[in-house]
Amino acid sequence: MRSVAQNAQLALLLEVTSTPKPGNVDRERDYPDLRFEHFVTGAVGAYDGLAIAGDGGAVGNAFERAIAGMSDQEGGNTQFGAILLVTPLAIAAVDGDLSPEGARAVAESTTVEDAVDFYRAFDHVGVAVDEPPEELSAPDVRRGSDAAPDIREQGLTLYDVLAESANVDGLAAEWTSGFPRTFETARRIEARDGPVADRAAAVFLELLAEEIDTFVVTQHDMETAREVQRRAQAALDGEESVRSLAAEFVEREINPGTTADLITGGIFIALERGIEL
Amino acid sequence: MRSVAQNAQLALLLEVTSTPKPGNVDRERDYPDLRFEHFVTGAVGAYDGLAIAGDGGAVGNAFERAIAGMSDQEGGNTQFGAILLVTPLAIAAVDGDLSPEGARAVAESTTVEDAVDFYRAFDHVGVAVDEPPEELSAPDVRRGSDAAPDIREQGLTLYDVLAESANVDGLAAEWTSGFPRTFETARRIEARDGPVADRAAAVFLELLAEEIDTFVVTQHDMETAREVQRRAQAALDGEESVRSLAAEFVEREINPGTTADLITGGIFIALERGIEL
Repeated sequence: MRSVAQNAQLALLLEVTSTPKPGNVDRERDYPDLRFEHFVTGAVGAYDGLAIAGDGGAVGNAFERAIAGMSDQEGGNTQFGAILLVTPLAIAAVDGDLSPEGARAVAESTTVEDAVDFYRAFDHVGVAVDEPPEELSAPDVRRGSDAAPDIREQGLTLYDVLAESANVDGLAAEWTSGFPRTFETARRIEARDGPVADRAAAVFLELLAEEIDTFVVTQHDMETAREVQRRAQAALDGEESVRSLAAEFVEREINPGTTADLITGGIFIALERGIEL
Repeated sequence: MRSVAQNAQLALLLEVTSTPKPGNVDRERDYPDLRFEHFVTGAVGAYDGLAIAGDGGAVGNAFERAIAGMSDQEGGNTQFGAILLVTPLAIAAVDGDLSPEGARAVAESTTVEDAVDFYRAFDHVGVAVDEPPEELSAPDVRRGSDAAPDIREQGLTLYDVLAESANVDGLAAEWTSGFPRTFETARRIEARDGPVADRAAAVFLELLAEEIDTFVVTQHDMETAREVQRRAQAALDGEESVRSLAAEFVEREINPGTTADLITGGIFIALERGIEL
């Protein structure tokens, strides 16, 4: 019987295993400096932080420790967003209510110290983020732990911080709305048949066609993100080969990371609900 | 900084990641009912047992708990032999002497209770083993925990049990001779360049050409094992494609598991020595 922390770690590993996921590192694809083996190493390193969540610890502390461990490899940021999504879900699972309501409650009960730890996590690894919009009152995350005094002075919780970017960041949107797409992802993975990693790849393509991937917007621009969405739909419609799409997106370094993060969260929920593997 | 247990888990994951390894499940190859995702799940589940070794616990207890956790997936035996090889190495690492001498000392100091736990591990998962030869005095491992009274009565340590099959089992041979091929595997992995998983696959082919794989003897017969050795040499010599060899061996269900186990042990040692990844 796997623990909550083990299911969280397994979700990270199964996400990167599932293929084809156009543009992402997966079982069949590497970037030259960001390879499958970096993801595996990152998931091993993340465990101690995930175990803090599994012991009912604080979201921010669990997340920051997981990111510190994840970063102990040379590929850089492997699954920062996935861990940000899985951490509150793991705590909801430990609380015995892994539901949209339970996960929302975890997110809403985050504290100022959770926010400070969230910022601290940016000390460990470079994460692609946009210039903060002018209206944003929270400190720029790129300041990392240096932002702690400002966060405390403003009294911002982790929920507050994420709420500010919910309109431009798909993960922040999940965090502040009861994780609807993540639970829907779990439902779809559970509804399919076959190897779990194959189901996850099929659902990835659906998600990619349904909404723009905000990480692609950050990495590239809105036009590229719309193209990704359109071509994922074309692949679903059988008008494009998903494998050639995967090769092309890797070539162009288009990496729909937010959609991959949703897959990780969905796999975690499915594992907690006892999906057979 | 990864712990000893984390390096052991990572070694399991990197071994199954490394490709091509003719005949084995790897990043590119599955058997229909024994897939990459089963190995990943097994490695996640093995962690609690590996952590017992990492805390300096008993070899037998650590091994048995790791196998119990590994078996919590539907693929069956994924990395039984690899865990059997890594466990004493992990304890040697914790003891501060991860050398042939240190590992030999761990193996030689095993107790009767380690042997009992070793047999108990066979309760958790089906492992391909030969009919025991008539001259063997140790109980048939397939009896699992039922053999405990006999083991205790005979006063057999885990070292004693493995010594009896050292002439027919490549892992038992390692266990009872200071793990020479395992340390040589580590040396070769360290001496190469490039992604660690790629180095491991290259060394796998060398090992396969150098000695017969005793697991292939068990699964098939000596003739098949000799063919595997010969054709691995042909692949090294450029006379055969290693990828077509990999496809053919999977098709014929020829699975050089002992050689894969040596790779796991070698990766573990290389990780402990600080190989960069």
